[in-house]
Amino acid sequence: MTDNNAKARGDERHKARQQKVKEAVDAKVAAANIEKGVLMVITGNGKGKTTAGFGTVARAVGHGKQAAVVQFIKGNWDCGERKLLEGAGVPFEVMATGFTWDTQNRETDTQAAEKAWAQAEIWLKDERIDLILLDELTYMLSYHYLDLERVLSALKSRPPMQHVVVTGRNCHRQLLELADTVSEIECVRHAFEAGVKAQPGFDY
Amino acid sequence: MTDNNAKARGDERHKARQQKVKEAVDAKVAAANIEKGVLMVITGNGKGKTTAGFGTVARAVGHGKQAAVVQFIKGNWDCGERKLLEGAGVPFEVMATGFTWDTQNRETDTQAAEKAWAQAEIWLKDERIDLILLDELTYMLSYHYLDLERVLSALKSRPPMQHVVVTGRNCHRQLLELADTVSEIECVRHAFEAGVKAQPGFDY
Repeated sequence: MTDNNAKARGDERHKARQQKVKEAVDAKVAAANIEKGVLMVITGNGKGKTTAGFGTVARAVGHGKQAAVVQFIKGNWDCGERKLLEGAGVPFEVMATGFTWDTQNRETDTQAAEKAWAQAEIWLKDERIDLILLDELTYMLSYHYLDLERVLSALKSRPPMQHVVVTGRNCHRQLLELADTVSEIECVRHAFEAGVKAQPGFDY
Repeated sequence: MTDNNAKARGDERHKARQQKVKEAVDAKVAAANIEKGVLMVITGNGKGKTTAGFGTVARAVGHGKQAAVVQFIKGNWDCGERKLLEGAGVPFEVMATGFTWDTQNRETDTQAAEKAWAQAEIWLKDERIDLILLDELTYMLSYHYLDLERVLSALKSRPPMQHVVVTGRNCHRQLLELADTVSEIECVRHAFEAGVKAQPGFDY
């Protein structure tokens, strides 16, 4: 009986706590009434930036939205996401040089970056595109393969309802300031450091 | 001429730096030769945890792997990812109570959690499933809806090549310790705080 009473009191406390959480959330949701295209940056050293970007694309496609993807850097990888999403009508522009530390040629890398960016600019003017993923764009700026002002300007003048997701480490300060949402993925631990190799269908 | 020389020297330095990066990466890649199922936890307060989880599922599907999803908590949402992935053959088990602060009943929440977990346990014994996403599992532990030992035990005894991704805030310390890879998504900024409402096809 005492046990039952204690349980009932515990349940009541739980309910009261949850009620407070619910009220706070409801108030915040009611206050958030702006609809606009969100510029989201996913940065940091942890695993999951590109994956979160492609997850957002999958979500948009699942809602019948038109998404487009520009992949900077990872051009030569066998990319599982790409197969699934291209099959669902998502156009891809892929910078085909692979990792920059594999090519190590600033001139050809810059040309490849500019070619990929030219496609990004076309989509950034097209209001039929609901969401654009600019995967690994940050490196194009930190390596000075692309002009920062040109990138910022295209992002600022895009259609007002268009969402953009930018991924990559070490995002430039000015791009972070322009973003509506910034998530930083920290690497607390990575299996790779313990000798586990990158595996297809999970890591790439 | 001087300009050209400076550019050439700059290109050389860039190439030398990149060469060093490449050597370090190559050495690490060569050392990482273990193949195993990875337990990955994506936690933290930032936006992108669930999205990264679903991105991993999309990647697996794109590689022809069999994935399965258990969604704890977000059962009543119109979920864009689900449409796309179910269409691609990914089975879903969804805990249908919605957010816990909407239901606020520990007893029915616990029952719903246990029902969802029972399906997770079936998949965690099935070596035909290459990847399981346990979306928002962490809350089931922090609210004591599921028994920690039962969860840890099922994860530990799963097929050796099976990958598991767990998402959610405030992951239990013992689950973090069991994980091979842990990413923590920090919220640097969120559009919601500036009054932007959650929008279908982007936020959910």
